[in-house]
Amino acid sequence: MPSTHTYNRKQNFLRACRGEAVDHVPAWIMRQAGRYLPEYQAVREKHSFLEICKTPELAAEVSLQPFRRLGVDAVIVFSDILIVAEAMGMALEVPESGPVLRKPIRDVTAVKRLRAFDPHVATQFVGDAIREICRAVGPDVPVIGFAGAPWTLACYMIEGKTRGEIATSKRMLYARPELLRALLEKIADATALYLQAQIEAGAAVVQLFDTWAGELTRDEYFSFALPVTQRVIHALHDSGTPVILYTKGTAHCIASLAVTGAQVLSVDWRIELDEARRKFGPHIGLQGNVDPRVLLTSPEIVADAVRATIAKTGGIGHIVNLGHGILPKTPVENAAAFVRAAQEFKLPGVATRARSGAGRAVESGAEN
Amino acid sequence: MPSTHTYNRKQNFLRACRGEAVDHVPAWIMRQAGRYLPEYQAVREKHSFLEICKTPELAAEVSLQPFRRLGVDAVIVFSDILIVAEAMGMALEVPESGPVLRKPIRDVTAVKRLRAFDPHVATQFVGDAIREICRAVGPDVPVIGFAGAPWTLACYMIEGKTRGEIATSKRMLYARPELLRALLEKIADATALYLQAQIEAGAAVVQLFDTWAGELTRDEYFSFALPVTQRVIHALHDSGTPVILYTKGTAHCIASLAVTGAQVLSVDWRIELDEARRKFGPHIGLQGNVDPRVLLTSPEIVADAVRATIAKTGGIGHIVNLGHGILPKTPVENAAAFVRAAQEFKLPGVATRARSGAGRAVESGAEN
Repeated sequence: MPSTHTYNRKQNFLRACRGEAVDHVPAWIMRQAGRYLPEYQAVREKHSFLEICKTPELAAEVSLQPFRRLGVDAVIVFSDILIVAEAMGMALEVPESGPVLRKPIRDVTAVKRLRAFDPHVATQFVGDAIREICRAVGPDVPVIGFAGAPWTLACYMIEGKTRGEIATSKRMLYARPELLRALLEKIADATALYLQAQIEAGAAVVQLFDTWAGELTRDEYFSFALPVTQRVIHALHDSGTPVILYTKGTAHCIASLAVTGAQVLSVDWRIELDEARRKFGPHIGLQGNVDPRVLLTSPEIVADAVRATIAKTGGIGHIVNLGHGILPKTPVENAAAFVRAAQEFKLPGVATRARSGAGRAVESGAEN
Repeated sequence: MPSTHTYNRKQNFLRACRGEAVDHVPAWIMRQAGRYLPEYQAVREKHSFLEICKTPELAAEVSLQPFRRLGVDAVIVFSDILIVAEAMGMALEVPESGPVLRKPIRDVTAVKRLRAFDPHVATQFVGDAIREICRAVGPDVPVIGFAGAPWTLACYMIEGKTRGEIATSKRMLYARPELLRALLEKIADATALYLQAQIEAGAAVVQLFDTWAGELTRDEYFSFALPVTQRVIHALHDSGTPVILYTKGTAHCIASLAVTGAQVLSVDWRIELDEARRKFGPHIGLQGNVDPRVLLTSPEIVADAVRATIAKTGGIGHIVNLGHGILPKTPVENAAAFVRAAQEFKLPGVATRARSGAGRAVESGAEN
């Protein structure tokens, strides 16, 4: 029976990715560094969004805030998926209404103009932020790097902004499939190098965000999103670094998700984790899948939801997270209850373990 | 072998609902009366949205526009699902930015204040519009009545407006489930009477719109949306009028959808119709499921998409439609191509049939 200190946080997290026994169910929160935290808002009062992304000390600081405040099991680097679009040559602006890419991609010329970039130069600030975070948390805490998955980043590059019905992107898919494919492949290759640089900088895990995957039909996902997702993941294979693939609204794409090569599939509340486990098998880890709107209620309801989610997997091969990013209006105490409920979940044969607000493990005595 | 005139449009449409042989695959378009049509915009220049809804002659006129222009197989009455909320006592306004319900429902008092209403009085204009349309098209063309499904109407009543993450509605579901249930049941009973009145006025089919169903987990759909959806459909059972249930993003709710009692399930592009047929069986009709963004391309691509959709069902028990409402920027010629491609689809053993722009059947000679 493993003691409460059998694994450090990084070991424990990586074991969860691989479906191995853990001493507690790890938890983190998508968009955990952000608007719902007063300490983040304090930084934002003095610095713009992009300034934080591009200043390693600031990016590291806001990345660490949820670790200190909530004791999450992993620290994801604060950044934005559009950083890659900018590095490929697009003009990025981030007004209060949300990020905007000027001159969206609509034709062959625009796709050809996109450039491969050296992440050690063009996006060095991301690597530096990861190195800074790794120094701060030490070797025992996993740092997560990330990028947009090719389809989702392509949608932003085609639309120019984040909202709407991605009608222009889907029109390109129907009317100019070869143009879309060329764009997706270019993004995939840039993304692979970008994530490799994050791994070199110290990321123990990387996550691909495919937020718009659910807008595709089963066959469109298979034909357009899957090959380029596989291409990115395949390029990272030799690093041995687990890839978490996040998708939303993809209950209809199960067959494709099973063969992306991702070590962990992060799904939303529309996929039941017990069904997912049966369909994906024991060798693919699961991340999720609490509805972020649950965190608008109370700590008790949040804890119940977390326990219900873990009950679907037995806590095996499971990283607790939301099914989508945390909402800005979330009370911090509910975010804390979310993380705590996962970490305190009593796994069979494992002593319980409580965590302080500073993110340190504190033994609470051997139970069960 | 049926001749091209074996069935009139209404017979043909009702046969498709029941999975019986048809002489052509019927087609209509969700939101077929609306902003993409210049003749609708001409009416809107002179009359407000609510004025059109509440003036039977105007509502009938805009309802008939897509029948004249596109030759659709059914005429849906022009109205809004929030008409029921207003009739139950809420203040409805429709500025250019979209409908708003003042004083959204947040507590027991507000739910209790909602009143049952007599649709022959409070919403007589809807019945009158249906009667007007029936007079105009005669007995051979089906007129479709509609209402919001209880969960979706409840979301609007709780949120107050149509956009956003329905965060308040889901918070109520988690934190005050009995309050939400009371609201849903009250809506269900009002909706059943409202649809019965539409049937009495001449609606040959009614459709329930559950646009927000996809925001629920499988268990939440089963526990909250399904019982009240069944309640509405059950109340209409003796009328013998088929109910079409529209949902979006519900690939994870198949088991519940199969037992709603709906004669036809209208699904979006996230559910493949061949899989749906296997899962729902031959006795439930299918409606859909082309992505409305396909209609932003060209008549050729639209026709290909329609043919691909019909190929999944063989044209049996299938009403061709979109997976969501037609987009305002849709070129009219693409909407026309959509309807025409369905109607001209060559069913095995059926003579082809072309339709004029005025929506009349024209024999094109015996082929196949």
